[in-house]
Amino acid sequence: MLKKSVNINGAQMRLVVDSKATLSDVLREQLHLTGTKVSCNKAQCGACNVIMNGKVVFGCATKMEKVPDDAIITTIEGIGTPTNLHALQLAFVKHGTAQCGFCTPGFIVSAKALLDQNANPTRTETRDWFQKHKNVCRCTGYKPIVDAVMDASKLLRGELTVQDLSFKMPADGKIWGTDYPRPSAVAKATGTIDYGADLGIKMPAGTLHLKLVQAQVSHANILSIDTTEAEQMPGVYKVVTHKDIKGKNRITGLITFPTNKGDGWDRPILCDEKVFQFGDALAIVCADTEAHAQAAVEKVKVDLEVLPAYMSAPAAMEPDALEIHPGTPNVYYRQGIQKGQDTGPLMEQADVVVSAEDLFVGRQPHLPMEPDVALAYYDDNQHLQIMSKSIGLELHSFMIGPGLGVEAGKNLFLSQFPGVGGTFGYKFSPTIEALVGAATIATGLPCFLNFDYYQQITYTGKRSPFFMDLKYGADKNGKIVAMESNWAVDHGPYSEFGDLLTLRGAQFIGAGYGIENIRGAGYTVATNHAWGSAFRAYGSPQSLFASETLMDMLAEKLNMDPLELRYVNAYREGDTLPSGQEPEVYSMTQLIDMIRPKYVAALNAATAASTPQKKRGVGVSVGVYGCGLDGPDGAEVWAELLPNGQVQVSTNWQDHGQGADMGLLATSHETLRPMGVKPEDIKLVMNDMNLAPAGGPAGGSRSQFVVGNAVVNACEQLVRAMTKQDGTYMTYDEAVAKELPTKYVGQWSTASADASACDPDTGQGKPFASYMYGVFLAEVEVDTKTGKVRVLKMTLAADVGSIANKTVIDGQMYGGLAQGVGLALSEDFDDLKRHTDMLHCGIPYIKDIPDDIELMYLETPRDLGPHGASGVGELPLTSPHAAISNAIYNACQVRITQLPALPEKVLAGLQGKDIPVATRPVKDPVML
Amino acid sequence: MLKKSVNINGAQMRLVVDSKATLSDVLREQLHLTGTKVSCNKAQCGACNVIMNGKVVFGCATKMEKVPDDAIITTIEGIGTPTNLHALQLAFVKHGTAQCGFCTPGFIVSAKALLDQNANPTRTETRDWFQKHKNVCRCTGYKPIVDAVMDASKLLRGELTVQDLSFKMPADGKIWGTDYPRPSAVAKATGTIDYGADLGIKMPAGTLHLKLVQAQVSHANILSIDTTEAEQMPGVYKVVTHKDIKGKNRITGLITFPTNKGDGWDRPILCDEKVFQFGDALAIVCADTEAHAQAAVEKVKVDLEVLPAYMSAPAAMEPDALEIHPGTPNVYYRQGIQKGQDTGPLMEQADVVVSAEDLFVGRQPHLPMEPDVALAYYDDNQHLQIMSKSIGLELHSFMIGPGLGVEAGKNLFLSQFPGVGGTFGYKFSPTIEALVGAATIATGLPCFLNFDYYQQITYTGKRSPFFMDLKYGADKNGKIVAMESNWAVDHGPYSEFGDLLTLRGAQFIGAGYGIENIRGAGYTVATNHAWGSAFRAYGSPQSLFASETLMDMLAEKLNMDPLELRYVNAYREGDTLPSGQEPEVYSMTQLIDMIRPKYVAALNAATAASTPQKKRGVGVSVGVYGCGLDGPDGAEVWAELLPNGQVQVSTNWQDHGQGADMGLLATSHETLRPMGVKPEDIKLVMNDMNLAPAGGPAGGSRSQFVVGNAVVNACEQLVRAMTKQDGTYMTYDEAVAKELPTKYVGQWSTASADASACDPDTGQGKPFASYMYGVFLAEVEVDTKTGKVRVLKMTLAADVGSIANKTVIDGQMYGGLAQGVGLALSEDFDDLKRHTDMLHCGIPYIKDIPDDIELMYLETPRDLGPHGASGVGELPLTSPHAAISNAIYNACQVRITQLPALPEKVLAGLQGKDIPVATRPVKDPVML
Repeated sequence: MLKKSVNINGAQMRLVVDSKATLSDVLREQLHLTGTKVSCNKAQCGACNVIMNGKVVFGCATKMEKVPDDAIITTIEGIGTPTNLHALQLAFVKHGTAQCGFCTPGFIVSAKALLDQNANPTRTETRDWFQKHKNVCRCTGYKPIVDAVMDASKLLRGELTVQDLSFKMPADGKIWGTDYPRPSAVAKATGTIDYGADLGIKMPAGTLHLKLVQAQVSHANILSIDTTEAEQMPGVYKVVTHKDIKGKNRITGLITFPTNKGDGWDRPILCDEKVFQFGDALAIVCADTEAHAQAAVEKVKVDLEVLPAYMSAPAAMEPDALEIHPGTPNVYYRQGIQKGQDTGPLMEQADVVVSAEDLFVGRQPHLPMEPDVALAYYDDNQHLQIMSKSIGLELHSFMIGPGLGVEAGKNLFLSQFPGVGGTFGYKFSPTIEALVGAATIATGLPCFLNFDYYQQITYTGKRSPFFMDLKYGADKNGKIVAMESNWAVDHGPYSEFGDLLTLRGAQFIGAGYGIENIRGAGYTVATNHAWGSAFRAYGSPQSLFASETLMDMLAEKLNMDPLELRYVNAYREGDTLPSGQEPEVYSMTQLIDMIRPKYVAALNAATAASTPQKKRGVGVSVGVYGCGLDGPDGAEVWAELLPNGQVQVSTNWQDHGQGADMGLLATSHETLRPMGVKPEDIKLVMNDMNLAPAGGPAGGSRSQFVVGNAVVNACEQLVRAMTKQDGTYMTYDEAVAKELPTKYVGQWSTASADASACDPDTGQGKPFASYMYGVFLAEVEVDTKTGKVRVLKMTLAADVGSIANKTVIDGQMYGGLAQGVGLALSEDFDDLKRHTDMLHCGIPYIKDIPDDIELMYLETPRDLGPHGASGVGELPLTSPHAAISNAIYNACQVRITQLPALPEKVLAGLQGKDIPVATRPVKDPVML
Repeated sequence: MLKKSVNINGAQMRLVVDSKATLSDVLREQLHLTGTKVSCNKAQCGACNVIMNGKVVFGCATKMEKVPDDAIITTIEGIGTPTNLHALQLAFVKHGTAQCGFCTPGFIVSAKALLDQNANPTRTETRDWFQKHKNVCRCTGYKPIVDAVMDASKLLRGELTVQDLSFKMPADGKIWGTDYPRPSAVAKATGTIDYGADLGIKMPAGTLHLKLVQAQVSHANILSIDTTEAEQMPGVYKVVTHKDIKGKNRITGLITFPTNKGDGWDRPILCDEKVFQFGDALAIVCADTEAHAQAAVEKVKVDLEVLPAYMSAPAAMEPDALEIHPGTPNVYYRQGIQKGQDTGPLMEQADVVVSAEDLFVGRQPHLPMEPDVALAYYDDNQHLQIMSKSIGLELHSFMIGPGLGVEAGKNLFLSQFPGVGGTFGYKFSPTIEALVGAATIATGLPCFLNFDYYQQITYTGKRSPFFMDLKYGADKNGKIVAMESNWAVDHGPYSEFGDLLTLRGAQFIGAGYGIENIRGAGYTVATNHAWGSAFRAYGSPQSLFASETLMDMLAEKLNMDPLELRYVNAYREGDTLPSGQEPEVYSMTQLIDMIRPKYVAALNAATAASTPQKKRGVGVSVGVYGCGLDGPDGAEVWAELLPNGQVQVSTNWQDHGQGADMGLLATSHETLRPMGVKPEDIKLVMNDMNLAPAGGPAGGSRSQFVVGNAVVNACEQLVRAMTKQDGTYMTYDEAVAKELPTKYVGQWSTASADASACDPDTGQGKPFASYMYGVFLAEVEVDTKTGKVRVLKMTLAADVGSIANKTVIDGQMYGGLAQGVGLALSEDFDDLKRHTDMLHCGIPYIKDIPDDIELMYLETPRDLGPHGASGVGELPLTSPHAAISNAIYNACQVRITQLPALPEKVLAGLQGKDIPVATRPVKDPVML
């Protein structure tokens, strides 16, 4: 320990610290200056950046013994406050630059140091600066951040006013469709919103810190777990094992299809008989400090019989593979697709047939900025309360309740942390909720578990790899007459939603086009690699990579322009989706029309700029995704007039940075507007099972559409009830005087739009009441010496219906496109030894993402949508990677069929060598 | 536990809290918003005031379950920051309103709420507001606080500018004697300076929380202490008892006089054989949380044989009283005074003789805003580091080292917390330093102990009561020809400095007057009531109350005006102090001349305003106190030219709110000024044995004088060494190039001024090299129905030499006078059942202290003083209470001889009843 004099945000301090403690830990844990975030904790991401003696430093890499005496340190808290925003903070609010907001303090701190030394930086200088200081953002695609820095610098230079950067209310008082800043923007830009780790730090004294004993192998039988020594360690209250779990000790996967051969009870809370994947939780140490808990982890003795690990679908499909869940075949579900006529004869008759047998999209890691985190406690009613990053509060309470021996909504309540630092879908599955719950049940005490980034990567679910074969038969004009598809899904050891994900192959391979005749099947395979969880655009990036890659191959074979081939096949009145459902709007051809001039210009530019060393190329793809859960999907919302004249709108529209608060505010305000309710008069009550009704999980771009409709329904009821005969509206007191209820329960379900689940054999149905459509245009440059691909520009023409909030939706698009760049070029989680941090998992830094991203909207209002809106979030990640891959081929004629398109793969292709491929699965596995 | 949505300083938060936790604890312990202070923790003092939904509330009395949902809360952190001060904060800086600063956030928060609802409050409205919200200040006498609020409101109204409230550097660049704001002012006004409890909260995880097992009786033999059950309690690491103490388990009292019959090793760290006073520490529970430690305290079983408790000097002096420290008589020291001729014959010859036999000043409690607090840890060199409120770092390290088995300056180092919330002398003694040290030695871990206010009152030392007899013989002109004195000092069970305190009776009974012939003796008595520690003006408030009360009685007997009687006797050239020492300046008559017009006006006003129900009166007194420790007293200071051109000045000039930082800055700057050094170029390194040399304890008004001289010496050496032949000064680089040292060690001792300790038999010597002189004028109103006394105005004419900093010195005067009002009218610690909190100990609230306080300075430069300065801090508390008591007599002819002059005492006097008195001690105890 040492004493250190520092000046932090203008306050002179003398602190007693551990010499080896990091500056970020001291700021956070000792000073509770939690605006400084810790994400990677290894100097890769800049979330912890602070200014020390004028320079930007990584808080996580700065040991206290290296902090100079009397160092002058500025954190986000010293830059501005909610009541006194700095120009950067104002500009970040304006540009919607904080989505999940977890990276925001680090960016603002870096930017402050930049502007301190360069009052007028260019965009390039700004990007270079963030690259230098390794500021990573996973939500925004970086562009809005640079936009904000530009505007902040203008404000500081006097070229803009505060008013210029503030929201201007239109004359009609309508905020729907405007750039109204999301309610949480100021809190995020000032670092004052509490994420899980922040709240964990701010828990009452006596809260236990948890650390997990995790499996270091991928498959094993558990012989014994001995906690004796660990329980004697200093500060240890208890070591919880499966023996302490009061319920079934299983997380139920809520099996969707009766033909699924699993029972959905395959995922233990704490492993009892077997280890199913690397990182599986074997025991929980509960101690007074994190360090004491970790020290005791090392003392838990686990005796294992290691089994062969099946690390991919093909391996697990081998006939001699052990059943990972004894009694359930590794291939535990088959999803067929049968649409129109038998494709065999059609293929034979087709003018052109094209196929690919090694299409593969791998285990993309979500890489949210915020590692997983949760806490639990008993409230004064002895209800078990669990707070986490859950984006499906009720769903998760039903999934974990039986395993813990508590009952959802009765003595188990979930809620979100105020800030959730990105999930991109991984939190559609429960992760550590049950673990903190089990610890609190076992100890009776509040318990807090905060993952480090290694745990985030190795423990949480991933995008499930698809191994895909695809064949098109087309006529000479390019019209596809038949499609045959086969796909195997490596879903890891836990079945939850695995069948649904497999269905996505049936729904989205070939989506975008009017293909009448389809045959195929997909298989869900249990493996010992990471369990499959939802990831933005769930199933479609795999599906569309296959169909959009093959589309380019077909165009080449036909010698047609790839965009025109798509135009020929794009949905037109009367066409149906692969599921047989009619699109609710036919805007695909219009979207292609919108993008065509950009595409032509891009082709010309690429031709002009290409050199032998730096080859340029252009690629396109279409993207389609459904809004909602398959089949009937509903939500509940309460609208209540309060005594003070405000309207309280309550629902669990979970936020993970996508802008749930803005969605709820804009949607309810637009319905309440006739009553004269101003946005600031709407009180949002969200994301707490104790306080608000179920909106359903925040995934599958369902919230704005499904919850939004329930919002409209609730608010309409209120407006209607409060309307007086003269067309004016009652006050609260008038309503009470008339004995009118002031609270209205709104509900809506896609059942009202005849949605129906798809058939497991044919894949036919009406799964979604609304879809999003888009066309992607990628412009790339391939370095033929290194194989390195640089994306120069992304363009997206999108139809997401009527736009609820321009800033939020732009932000979703930018961010999804950036994740598409990552998926295309760098992101992977396969090698357990290598893919263990952000950098090695291939997260894109600012200079990996083009500053030039162009968004074009076709606002086709949806009849069924709230105020005409459809969903948003999944669209930008449906197929941008396919456009990039197609652009690589266009640039240098190297066809990458298995993502990511790493430089070594592209280089191998350029050199005419074999491009390494993943093992292909057995095409038609025997279903036991 | 419950979840609570609140908005704190503009940040929307959802917190998980214990329903019964207080808002202030949640703010501090969970959010680390430590600007909000907890002092009394029972809604008596306003230190924890915050604004909730527009109203001022006591944080300590607001349970979280009572905080309304979505409450909008403002704490000091939300009012302004060091880089963005609020008008109130600027004005508080300007007026030196933050002395110790512990009450400051509460005052600023209250004032903010006032100004929010009343933009132009009067002084009376402001005082009413603070009274209503119970804001207590122990340092400032309240007046500067009201001054600051007035100026802040003017600034907010646009009647003043920021510049008006900012320091204006004079043309000569001289800050000596100006209102330059003390360096710590901004930190105190913004709540960003860390006091002990704040730093304790900000310690690294794993720091143990300590709670004490304390004696609930005042005197007992210890039969056994059983910690078995306590050590099994949750979160308990260890229960430390005397058996765990590695050293002598005694705090050495550093016996000063060889004739002291004690050995100075009478105070245990943890009681082993006996309990000596209520609250004595028997064991220390070390646990992970405060609550766990407290729970385990209840489980420590202590078996005691209760002994008779001697709760006052007379009781302990009874012949049959047990020896509290077996082997040492309860009367363990006698201090004689013999000056001039034998007084017996002189008394017989005197024209007038007057005497009083029941003069008594009680156990005044210090009542600092900040309860006692300390922490300890091992640093990386395995040195035991102890941080506390110590105002005598080296002194205390020597006092506690042997008991703990560690060595001061070798493996034991003390330092002060950055903020020290007032001590007024109680921290001249070590309190809990040894306890935290023992806990860290026993556990190896950092340990933190924070007293609650009850412990502060019952455990820490108090002003020792004096039981005094006094007789004057005077000629008919009023000239005193002889004085006979007898005093017994109830010093509690611990001897440390008890002999020195007893000597103060010899030195200050009769001080101010040229009394040639004195005889008398004082006795130090061990009792079982609170041990005696230093308290501002140490010994003189008791001594001077006797001589100044008797002075008025003499005046009455002579039918002389009391002020004129004092004028007759006041020091004139050739007179000596009771010690036989010549005053270094003869300013007493001038001070009386200064105050005379005020006195006359006050008498006229009192006569005019007196009514039978509200009688007014005027009283005067003189005050004298010496600067420094008795006899030779020195300090060391380092002055070092730094490479960046700054000068670092290092010394342990401990601060307890009196303004050590300002003293060191002003004194060093005035010496360094020829070199062109600006105040902001002086780096102060203070109050840490690891970093700075010994300045000696910050008590007895010695620092400015003794340390100040060493500062001058160090800085003069530096200036001299850096002077070039042409009269300009070298840079650091030039000095290094010339191989000149850049660091100079300054030393100074009163030995250079021939100071010498007083003789135990005669009290004669030259104890102090400098003195402070003052004349007090009190104007009071007595309610004859209730006996309640209101002080209407205090005036002080003071000579403290040349003034180092006007704001700081004014502040010392106001604060000392306020404590004098408390001492006179309300403050006491006697009844262990009643005197257990601030309110019942009689702390003065704002309306108990007159807003009308007038200060007049006679700046007689001291030849020996640094830049002419003497000391300051003790003067205002030497005898203001005597002036008040004299004014009461003047108003209503009730003579209060035993303080405090509670209403019931005054009323008894008014009704002609006996005024209750303390038992008188045996006049001449047999010294064994």
